[in-house]
Amino acid sequence: MARTTGSDGERTEAAVREAAVNLIARYGYEAMSMRQLAAEVGVQAAALYRYFPTKEDLLFTLMREHMEGLREAWERARPFDADPAEQLAAYVRNHIAFHIGRRHATHVSNMELRSLSPDRLTQILKQRTAYEKELRTILREGAEAGDFSIEDTGLTAMALIQMMTGVIVWFRPGERLSVTEVTATYLSMTMRLVGARMDTYSAARPLDGQRTQ
Amino acid sequence: MARTTGSDGERTEAAVREAAVNLIARYGYEAMSMRQLAAEVGVQAAALYRYFPTKEDLLFTLMREHMEGLREAWERARPFDADPAEQLAAYVRNHIAFHIGRRHATHVSNMELRSLSPDRLTQILKQRTAYEKELRTILREGAEAGDFSIEDTGLTAMALIQMMTGVIVWFRPGERLSVTEVTATYLSMTMRLVGARMDTYSAARPLDGQRTQ
Repeated sequence: MARTTGSDGERTEAAVREAAVNLIARYGYEAMSMRQLAAEVGVQAAALYRYFPTKEDLLFTLMREHMEGLREAWERARPFDADPAEQLAAYVRNHIAFHIGRRHATHVSNMELRSLSPDRLTQILKQRTAYEKELRTILREGAEAGDFSIEDTGLTAMALIQMMTGVIVWFRPGERLSVTEVTATYLSMTMRLVGARMDTYSAARPLDGQRTQ
Repeated sequence: MARTTGSDGERTEAAVREAAVNLIARYGYEAMSMRQLAAEVGVQAAALYRYFPTKEDLLFTLMREHMEGLREAWERARPFDADPAEQLAAYVRNHIAFHIGRRHATHVSNMELRSLSPDRLTQILKQRTAYEKELRTILREGAEAGDFSIEDTGLTAMALIQMMTGVIVWFRPGERLSVTEVTATYLSMTMRLVGARMDTYSAARPLDGQRTQ
């Protein structure tokens, strides 16, 4: 997401990040050169190295900020004093909204882990694990409260995250369904998948009635 | 999958395909050169062009054969005279088994659509649509028979496929769970997600009791 305020330096750095996400999503990280990126942004290659001393610094920054953004969005979206079904519904809504708005960055974050050095890979995986743990905690608390019926909390969390992130593969704004409709249907599927009791399930569905066959 | 029988030419071609899948999964298609691939296989670059006149011919062959393999596996696995829950269970088992055994090829097939020419992209997308349609048909027939409770057949099919294919991202043989255990848990999640009636659902779960918390 390009910043529209800030110094020239900040604007350039934001433009570099945005162009890099698009180039990596299109060609892959290994195939993108800093020279190609500089040309895309309209600066000298040397200028890029002021912001990102190595190509991997750039990749790592993109991935770290993507995960930080996701976790911050969840911190803002999470309801307090809510039962597990409401918390799960909030997690689903936030996850889908965040990723639908960042299709290329999500692509890069999921695909290019292979190109991080071991230390940095560990850092990104730690961020991911922390985010996924939030979901596992909701699922476990729901199961313990008898609100959900779940065999394996870890597998259920992975299944839900991959199901939800998968929306970016096929969803395009302006086609058959709106984001609201897609989210409502994914919410229903999620609640059934975790075996939510019908009463908690209904309480967590304010978007009901917007679904299509 | 390398062939172990056949002429020298067939063996070389199989070795090229296998090396290409691994290199593309590691570096991305755009970053892989035919020279690098030839070195990996231990042949002259000119020899590669006998089998694959262009790099894109190679990519297209890998993707087409992946989808053909998936559809053939499903044709062999699909039960006839079975109710929708049994058919859905067979689809889930086949999908997970096929993809777990072909992690790199799945990666390549999902990521490198961006590098196909428009005509070839259309061909691969047609194969995918035909495969996904099989699942949509099962879901629709189950919903019509009152065995499943589904809001949107298309979205449910996409959600299930992405949830199942996602197994390759985290599953590693020899860790906490076996393929059989993972499949059993995914089968339960699938049956709940489609709102399967409990009796049909149980009938489709021969693997019951192998699940872990």
